[in-house]
Amino acid sequence: MTLQTISQNKSHDGIQAVYKHPSHQTKTDMTFSVFVPPHQAGAKLPVVWYLSGLTCTHANVTEKGEYRHACAELGLIFVAPDTSPRGGHVPGDPAGSYDFGLGAGFYVDATEQPYAANYRMWSYVTQELPELVAAHFPVDSTRQSVMGHSMGGHGALTVALRNADRYRAASAFSPIVAPSLVPWGTKALGGYLGPNKQAWRKHDTVALIEDGARFSEFLVDYGDADQFLSEQLRPELLQAACDKAKIPLTLRRQAGYDHSYYFISTFMRDHLAWHAARLKS
Amino acid sequence: MTLQTISQNKSHDGIQAVYKHPSHQTKTDMTFSVFVPPHQAGAKLPVVWYLSGLTCTHANVTEKGEYRHACAELGLIFVAPDTSPRGGHVPGDPAGSYDFGLGAGFYVDATEQPYAANYRMWSYVTQELPELVAAHFPVDSTRQSVMGHSMGGHGALTVALRNADRYRAASAFSPIVAPSLVPWGTKALGGYLGPNKQAWRKHDTVALIEDGARFSEFLVDYGDADQFLSEQLRPELLQAACDKAKIPLTLRRQAGYDHSYYFISTFMRDHLAWHAARLKS
Repeated sequence: MTLQTISQNKSHDGIQAVYKHPSHQTKTDMTFSVFVPPHQAGAKLPVVWYLSGLTCTHANVTEKGEYRHACAELGLIFVAPDTSPRGGHVPGDPAGSYDFGLGAGFYVDATEQPYAANYRMWSYVTQELPELVAAHFPVDSTRQSVMGHSMGGHGALTVALRNADRYRAASAFSPIVAPSLVPWGTKALGGYLGPNKQAWRKHDTVALIEDGARFSEFLVDYGDADQFLSEQLRPELLQAACDKAKIPLTLRRQAGYDHSYYFISTFMRDHLAWHAARLKS
Repeated sequence: MTLQTISQNKSHDGIQAVYKHPSHQTKTDMTFSVFVPPHQAGAKLPVVWYLSGLTCTHANVTEKGEYRHACAELGLIFVAPDTSPRGGHVPGDPAGSYDFGLGAGFYVDATEQPYAANYRMWSYVTQELPELVAAHFPVDSTRQSVMGHSMGGHGALTVALRNADRYRAASAFSPIVAPSLVPWGTKALGGYLGPNKQAWRKHDTVALIEDGARFSEFLVDYGDADQFLSEQLRPELLQAACDKAKIPLTLRRQAGYDHSYYFISTFMRDHLAWHAARLKS
């Protein structure tokens, strides 16, 4: 597979790079970033997948996430995919709003037209990109974990629940935990998957748990000054579902923090250390 | 003085904010960012001034500088001014290039027309903004230090040399040390200060040292993969000037690093710890 180097910069004694490649899933070029920490020649390293939120590309966390210092210390590869297909021929939101279409792929394989051809972010982040990354970087594929923010927190938790054998840890900042029940989610799942809400359940963390999916444990942080907390995020629904299913959940309410990367970067090191402990055990 | 809040976000247990105010120096609105770390009520904290490079605003280091974790641990206020006046009436580079005019104020008070009315970044960063910050934030004005990148490294070193009684420490990433001798500098100093090179010397670190200015010591990092190193930065000229003047200089050549914030963020913590040791002694 072709991998075009967009940039490579030394940082924290490792290499922060951005690549582009033609995706057979999305039928577009896709861009992603990879940080490879300093390591011994020939070593295979654990990899943390970071799924971004609405409106983001790979660039937001790459520039503002403050993960490199911790990844260099902990020996973690950090991969940040884009959040949707992009290109002149890719249909976006008909109304041009920020919460559907470009930048808002919601980590599903769309079944509705005109989105089905390109919006295949589920298969992209769970199959195509992991294979590409494993082929080009010193990854130990037996040691993978996943994290994300907001829409990407939704992505991380659903990806983990449906692939519990592959990911050793999963955490989220400010995740959308019950998209079937909140405005961002109903718009996205309805638009990409159609009106049959049964099809939404495998892309809804709370519904997946209700339907029997399990994962070893979750770490979730949210800020109590997050403007989206009560309408879109609703962490109490995750708490209730995990309690009922006896899934260990560390749910932390961070006083005064909002939905921004100023919040994410504050707790990034905590999350990475938590992942590292589970990836290296 | 009026201070308009653009944003305030909790981060690393402190507050990262962006403010705007009408400047009597530049006769424009000016924007700057301030991080105030967690502190006891009533405490006065040391302040680190960060001067940015060509094309930057306050936002670049605020988003990419990765200084908040260290500032929170070390108890440092961190202020990032803009790099030039801005607004519809402010003259930019006639050719529209990146290295003069908007985003390229070079930390001088212009004497040439049409720049003299607005381009007063020297007085802005050494007088107006420090007074504004001291009036609005819990700053111990007896404990100030200054650092910067590239054009802002030039700014930091010249500001320190001409105000050695005020700043307890000065450091730079990839500074322009001899602007009178390099393309970026001759364009800027010629454009703002006119053809008489004598007027340039007080805005040239190497010339200031040759002319007798002194500072306690400097810390300077540069990357040996910096594309601007040999033509624009020329750290060897600073080394020679400091050697001759017996100014202690810690000049570190960082292998493989370039001119970007991926480099700056790698060594930001080092610089801040170095500043903190001198600000608290």
